Amino acid sequence: MKVTITGASGFIGQKLARRLLDSNALVASDGSRKPVTELTLLDVVNAPDALTSDARVRSLAGDITDETLLAEAIPGDTDSVFHLAAIVSAGAEEDFDLGMAVNLDATRAILEILRKADGVPKMVFASSCAAFGGDLPHIVEDMTATTPQTSYGTQKAIGELLVSDYSRKGFVDGRSLRFPTVVVRPGKPNKAASTFASSIIREPLQGETAVCPVAGDARMWLASPRSIVENTVHAHNLAADAWGASRTVSLPGFSVTVAGMAKALESVAGPAVAGRIDWTPDPFIEKIVRGWPPEFNTKRAAALGFSQDEGMESVIRAFIEDELGGTIAA
Amino acid sequence: MKVTITGASGFIGQKLARRLLDSNALVASDGSRKPVTELTLLDVVNAPDALTSDARVRSLAGDITDETLLAEAIPGDTDSVFHLAAIVSAGAEEDFDLGMAVNLDATRAILEILRKADGVPKMVFASSCAAFGGDLPHIVEDMTATTPQTSYGTQKAIGELLVSDYSRKGFVDGRSLRFPTVVVRPGKPNKAASTFASSIIREPLQGETAVCPVAGDARMWLASPRSIVENTVHAHNLAADAWGASRTVSLPGFSVTVAGMAKALESVAGPAVAGRIDWTPDPFIEKIVRGWPPEFNTKRAAALGFSQDEGMESVIRAFIEDELGGTIAA
Repeated sequence: MKVTITGASGFIGQKLARRLLDSNALVASDGSRKPVTELTLLDVVNAPDALTSDARVRSLAGDITDETLLAEAIPGDTDSVFHLAAIVSAGAEEDFDLGMAVNLDATRAILEILRKADGVPKMVFASSCAAFGGDLPHIVEDMTATTPQTSYGTQKAIGELLVSDYSRKGFVDGRSLRFPTVVVRPGKPNKAASTFASSIIREPLQGETAVCPVAGDARMWLASPRSIVENTVHAHNLAADAWGASRTVSLPGFSVTVAGMAKALESVAGPAVAGRIDWTPDPFIEKIVRGWPPEFNTKRAAALGFSQDEGMESVIRAFIEDELGGTIAA
Repeated sequence: MKVTITGASGFIGQKLARRLLDSNALVASDGSRKPVTELTLLDVVNAPDALTSDARVRSLAGDITDETLLAEAIPGDTDSVFHLAAIVSAGAEEDFDLGMAVNLDATRAILEILRKADGVPKMVFASSCAAFGGDLPHIVEDMTATTPQTSYGTQKAIGELLVSDYSRKGFVDGRSLRFPTVVVRPGKPNKAASTFASSIIREPLQGETAVCPVAGDARMWLASPRSIVENTVHAHNLAADAWGASRTVSLPGFSVTVAGMAKALESVAGPAVAGRIDWTPDPFIEKIVRGWPPEFNTKRAAALGFSQDEGMESVIRAFIEDELGGTIAA
């Protein structure tokens, strides 16, 4: 199979690429498992050598709003696209036009490229729980209206609608996944308003302080990198007719307060580590984060066979294992 | 005030234009009532003489996807736009690209023009109950997810999201109204899958037969031209802060089966008139119509002060009065 990942140099993109290269099989449109023969990685910067050194990998660096580059990244015989590239929440809030260009126009351009491609290629679209917002019920259902309170969330909700309609028309075989906030992300903070949720775990575990810009009672809907990658592959492999009248699903996650995250850190790594969280509120970030839904009912995801994390402590332990080689700065 | 109506030569557009010229006042952004000093009517064909003969009217005919024309129709000092122009349901289903261009791209172009205009102009966007579809609850709430099963409904749901986000950002002061199916429309059938709902009343009252392409047990959500025009003006006149976290509202209507519509016709005009309905199913139309929600809970609209029809019989009587000069072909 010929597969393209957009946003491939990002954290989830790299993990997904690694996973596809290692397992070397995806379920094709005809229902059979087939090897990945070519994996195109598109992002603003090239993917790391650990990925590009694989003979099956084709790495492209550039602007996703460049339609010529996008067409090069998604040739006519592409079987599947994982579309992860995005301008994240605070970034799209700061630069409205850039958010519209990347999050909306590039998504539509990918759908149009796939519409003209051979057969009916699969497309997995990374949406977000930020598609929800405003006056929400305490627990968000798959049939709750998307009334996003950020431009990022708006653009993701629009992408979901386009993916569903292009799929209904038979132009693509799309699936949209509403990602919870992903913790714990390795590396540096990014422009997502949610980036602190990883920072307050990651930095203290490595002996550094991290600012927590929201108060402890703020509740968040989280999932681990392991479950996100697993569920992204699962979404791809499901049969088209499993989806029914909508191609969107809210992925399983777990609901925890920011104080609860700090408490889990203390219970895994001790009070000295948890003491490295610097609780300094930032109203701009706090307003965005509190606009997101704190908890979901993901029975549709469960019925479709998506998997779920155990909870915050096991997620922190997995991060220590996967990213810190088992070592913490106690 | 300087006001523009798109789709102004359509049936609702003409009635709205007449209403604005006659009442000659709208509530401006500052909350005061102001006279309409210039009314621009944009459509593929010019509005009728009865409207264009008014010295305040500026009539433009052309393609709404022509951005030069659109900019001419919406000068920088525009106070309000009523955006009614659309490729209707069956039309957008038959020509996907045309539907995307008119229903999505032109809506976005209007938002961009208003973003660059003086102040924060008002925009009333005609959305549709076709934004809903699929596996719906029996009664649709304002917080029910939009999972449209037509491209028209998809494009309308996307328009709602854009209007809300552009409003949240302070670029425009937008309001999206989910129109029920409007009955009874005068004139000729159009490309809307719902056009029969008017035909089966209008043609029999004038001595002609009309095909009803769906079975009598199909239930529809309807509103009269009178209530649609009244509620469109009301939506415009509401203060921005009345809307809360979403700029969208499902307009009040009434729920009736197609058989119930025929029965109301019989009770208003007699069995000979009702006997002119030719019940010949059309699976293409029936599938679209049955994909729409049959009933809404419009408590948000009620709280915002929108008005409601009495029911099918009074709507038929109003049609006879407004459009047939009180005369029917018994």
